[in-house]
Amino acid sequence: MVKAVILGSIALDSLETPFGKAENALGGSATYASTAASLFTDVGIIGIVGRDFPEEHVKFLESRGIDLKGMEKAEGKTLYWKGKYGFDINAPETLDIQLNVLADFKPKVPDEYKDADFLFLGNLDPSIQKSVLEQMNKRPKLVVSDTMNFYIEKDREAVLEMVKLSDIALMNDGEARQLFKTTNLIKAAREILKLDSGLAIIKKGEHGAVFLTENEFFSAPGYPLENVRDPTGAGDSFAGTLTGYLAKTGDLSPENIRRALIYASSVASFNAEGFSLEKLKTITLEDVEARFNEFKKIVQF
Amino acid sequence: MVKAVILGSIALDSLETPFGKAENALGGSATYASTAASLFTDVGIIGIVGRDFPEEHVKFLESRGIDLKGMEKAEGKTLYWKGKYGFDINAPETLDIQLNVLADFKPKVPDEYKDADFLFLGNLDPSIQKSVLEQMNKRPKLVVSDTMNFYIEKDREAVLEMVKLSDIALMNDGEARQLFKTTNLIKAAREILKLDSGLAIIKKGEHGAVFLTENEFFSAPGYPLENVRDPTGAGDSFAGTLTGYLAKTGDLSPENIRRALIYASSVASFNAEGFSLEKLKTITLEDVEARFNEFKKIVQF
Repeated sequence: MVKAVILGSIALDSLETPFGKAENALGGSATYASTAASLFTDVGIIGIVGRDFPEEHVKFLESRGIDLKGMEKAEGKTLYWKGKYGFDINAPETLDIQLNVLADFKPKVPDEYKDADFLFLGNLDPSIQKSVLEQMNKRPKLVVSDTMNFYIEKDREAVLEMVKLSDIALMNDGEARQLFKTTNLIKAAREILKLDSGLAIIKKGEHGAVFLTENEFFSAPGYPLENVRDPTGAGDSFAGTLTGYLAKTGDLSPENIRRALIYASSVASFNAEGFSLEKLKTITLEDVEARFNEFKKIVQF
Repeated sequence: MVKAVILGSIALDSLETPFGKAENALGGSATYASTAASLFTDVGIIGIVGRDFPEEHVKFLESRGIDLKGMEKAEGKTLYWKGKYGFDINAPETLDIQLNVLADFKPKVPDEYKDADFLFLGNLDPSIQKSVLEQMNKRPKLVVSDTMNFYIEKDREAVLEMVKLSDIALMNDGEARQLFKTTNLIKAAREILKLDSGLAIIKKGEHGAVFLTENEFFSAPGYPLENVRDPTGAGDSFAGTLTGYLAKTGDLSPENIRRALIYASSVASFNAEGFSLEKLKTITLEDVEARFNEFKKIVQF
């Protein structure tokens, strides 16, 4: 029984960082997010791949217990992204992007997913995100969404509508400042509160994340990574963990969301330590718990 | 008896932010730092002013119990800085700077200061910082120093030497990345550890601060300020509080440095809520304690 449904891209990535390179590695927001979420709960994926999508990647996702009924296989090629990280490991340069089968993607939510209580709408066009939400039999208990600068520039109103439709509309600090036209992150977070259900979470990359409600403020620190090998998918594994952990515990209290954010930061930091999904594939819940406990020491005073 | 000696600039600032303006307001690193430190301990100041330095500012500093024997009054005008903060309240544009009496400043440490155990070498030319350190009768128990991009560009080697001579060489994230030629903040902090006595602190503005030793890592969150009125002096009041609190407690354990950093963040956040020293002048130790306790809630999970 699928508890958390994850919509997003499934891609083949060609990556170069100062620490190595990879050709046609498994990538995409749904891939990172569902692998992370599968550490915590039963996940179903909604996405599209082409005929070229390697069987080994299918096998890997299945090995994590991820339900692939929502993964459509279409004529054509899988989404392809080629990126390069230079001196500033946080900001990749896109060398090539070929949408391929994603260009005409009209997601169909499998019947078995339609009663799921937890839904993550990963980084895709807001109209695709909305269509998945509308296909659900009832509104899920928790809808988490993600966006990026590309969609904010393309259609700000549609992104704002998705913020409104979500319980947690994830964005990073740059996106929040851009979307709400303010340099003050706390002001931006208050704008999110006005739109959605009263929870605002802003990711800050190496500086961690902040979480606001009307009455409280939580700051999750960044994990001190000396060697970031490949930050691709950090935001997606963060979002997948957040959704997966909340699905597992079923507890949406602010206290549990704080814990969920520390789990999310833990998994995202592991992810950045390896190329593509390399590290994410090998970590266990035990590893994540150990890092969660490290976070406790990091903020202690 | 002066417990903490503070070297730095004393200035008259003309400021403009989106929230107001001030002409010839009290400014300068020594002023902010000593006012902050005087909340905790007995402070003596080393700096220089001109004949135009208003008596009301002298009276204010005296009212805080700050010893002014080290404040030289010279022929000429006081350091003048004119700055403007625009849309991005964190980055001021310097419209005018007149060094005036500071141009030929050769600090003379008063005899009464020479046995002080705590010394803060505020943001001035490294050669001036070094000269003050050399005039002390013995090496203080704790030497805190500060720097800025201007000196890193002008004489990187001199700045590196000051890092080596200090126990805590404060810098912000941009300065740390610049000084050690890396985008990774943790790597930069490790470089500081190699040079100084085993403590590295990097300020991150709105994102708080990090503190590293060989064996531990502490992340102090930023205080969620929705209305930053004037961030001038935030770094100096941070440094002054750090020095003052450590002087007051006399405890240089990593645990106490963690607490000192939260006090420093508290005072610096108050400072940004008012123009010039407006807010810093009015807060009490009780206000700071209350904010310290707020920080406890901010990191709780």
